[in-house]
Amino acid sequence: MSGSRQADGHGRVVVLTGGTGGAKFVQGLAQVIAPRRITCVVNTGDDLMWWGLHVSPDLDSITYALAGMLSRERGWGVEADTFHCLQAMRRMGTPAWFQLGDRDLATHLTRTQLLAAGKTLSEATQEIAHELRIEAEIRPMSDARVETRVLTPDGELSFQEYFVRERFQVPVRGVRFEGAKKACPAPGVVESIARAQAVILAPSNPVTSVGPILAVPGLREALRNTRAPVAAVSPIVGGAAVSGPAAELMKTQGLPASLAGVTRSYTDLLDLLIADERDAGSGPESEGIAVRYTNTVMKSDADKAALARAVLGFLRKHEVEAAAS
Amino acid sequence: MSGSRQADGHGRVVVLTGGTGGAKFVQGLAQVIAPRRITCVVNTGDDLMWWGLHVSPDLDSITYALAGMLSRERGWGVEADTFHCLQAMRRMGTPAWFQLGDRDLATHLTRTQLLAAGKTLSEATQEIAHELRIEAEIRPMSDARVETRVLTPDGELSFQEYFVRERFQVPVRGVRFEGAKKACPAPGVVESIARAQAVILAPSNPVTSVGPILAVPGLREALRNTRAPVAAVSPIVGGAAVSGPAAELMKTQGLPASLAGVTRSYTDLLDLLIADERDAGSGPESEGIAVRYTNTVMKSDADKAALARAVLGFLRKHEVEAAAS
Repeated sequence: MSGSRQADGHGRVVVLTGGTGGAKFVQGLAQVIAPRRITCVVNTGDDLMWWGLHVSPDLDSITYALAGMLSRERGWGVEADTFHCLQAMRRMGTPAWFQLGDRDLATHLTRTQLLAAGKTLSEATQEIAHELRIEAEIRPMSDARVETRVLTPDGELSFQEYFVRERFQVPVRGVRFEGAKKACPAPGVVESIARAQAVILAPSNPVTSVGPILAVPGLREALRNTRAPVAAVSPIVGGAAVSGPAAELMKTQGLPASLAGVTRSYTDLLDLLIADERDAGSGPESEGIAVRYTNTVMKSDADKAALARAVLGFLRKHEVEAAAS
Repeated sequence: MSGSRQADGHGRVVVLTGGTGGAKFVQGLAQVIAPRRITCVVNTGDDLMWWGLHVSPDLDSITYALAGMLSRERGWGVEADTFHCLQAMRRMGTPAWFQLGDRDLATHLTRTQLLAAGKTLSEATQEIAHELRIEAEIRPMSDARVETRVLTPDGELSFQEYFVRERFQVPVRGVRFEGAKKACPAPGVVESIARAQAVILAPSNPVTSVGPILAVPGLREALRNTRAPVAAVSPIVGGAAVSGPAAELMKTQGLPASLAGVTRSYTDLLDLLIADERDAGSGPESEGIAVRYTNTVMKSDADKAALARAVLGFLRKHEVEAAAS
């Protein structure tokens, strides 16, 4: 939350992100500012062991987005990837509902080996990003295992069981983040937020994408205490999620699937809510958070760049106004 | 080594095998007798950890051969496989000289997971064979780690470093089998040999394919003591190996690259040597081992079946003669 103006116009922009909306937003941001100015703090609550490999879906999406490798068609995995190993796994009688592409496998094999050799998830993430010539910083929210658990009438599911296997068609009673209380933010995360020029909560699911990040002790405080302005891009447009189960999951937390609900998720730390122009006028300005409207639905590369540019513009204007007031 | 005649014509045929020659021979055998009558005892001295996965090249070749999946073009790996993961591993800066195909990866992922879950290599091998609807028995020579080490002037190499990475172009001073002395034969191996109708040493490299099998304590004795006739198909034709470095490696063991050298590798346990017709008359009959000649070079499926049929015919005739004498 901003207290004073940030004079330097070339500082780092920290993005808290998870899911496909977050990856698209980061793709836009990397078009409009130098990638070396971007730090992504990424949800790892969706991580899973699959076929014996450590898979970090949100770290992968951001990594592929920044390496120009992200599949446009699917929004996850590697562009133009094949699924021959998956087909062979199916023949082997192995569950194959979570799909790993052949090129994608290289990332999981590499990560799993680095972790087995004693590296932290931060180090493994950095090494993979370095090999793929990524200039932005990518940091997991924590090096500890924090697992998003989805409570259903028939028992708990991992996030991927709920999201991919059940296609989020099962009723949800609640969400918890196993291991969160004992976890620490990954090295550098709190510092990046403290020293940022701006912090942006990507248009990601507030419950299961940004939620796990904020559940890591110290992270919410870092966002409250930073001198940088904190903005969130709403993932809710016209009372529904742009994609995925955000609306349903928000309701399980007692939050309306609306701008008010998004605002309430972040009320203690937000300066600025950036909402879709289709919702113009419906923002809860009363809560002391400024609301700005633009097109937030990202279909093309131009949409992504335009949204990033608009968000940076709103942030700049907000700083000027804050300094003047 | 045979002592008395085996009356039952429907017993099991045990094949000791490794490498591409062995896989081809087994493909032939499965054409001419019911696969459920075949037991393969397979070299695991070439096994390696690669990309964090437990790879058993000779078990894989036999498995793919019996599942009708073995690449005809390459002689290893899966027919018509792609190498997209390998390309991505290369981009990741990972050594990629040992090639794993995308479909092939499913086997290594499955084996690695089964071993991590506490299964033995025998159990993992059986489970994979079962999933691939293989009726023949495939047994590793041992569940313990036995590693073929190749001694060169610049130090020791693993077999795959020597064979694949260096393309067997480095001078060799010797070969040793690390872990062999403490290893036991895998469950069922000694029993299969004892109860076999016939035992065949496939046309595999006597030093690094059959050699590691015979180095497992108890295996050589099992072959000496079995009542079944023991035949070897020579991998040497016209003083050279049909493929690979067998000739060079035999020389490092003080063995000539000839029928005499092959015979000397197996002299204590062999009843019958089956050699190529190009070498007709050059067999060392004097050592008390009968030598028979046929075409041993397997180019087509018909060649493979013809060789298997010829070997079984020689074995049958040998039994009749042994019983009559």
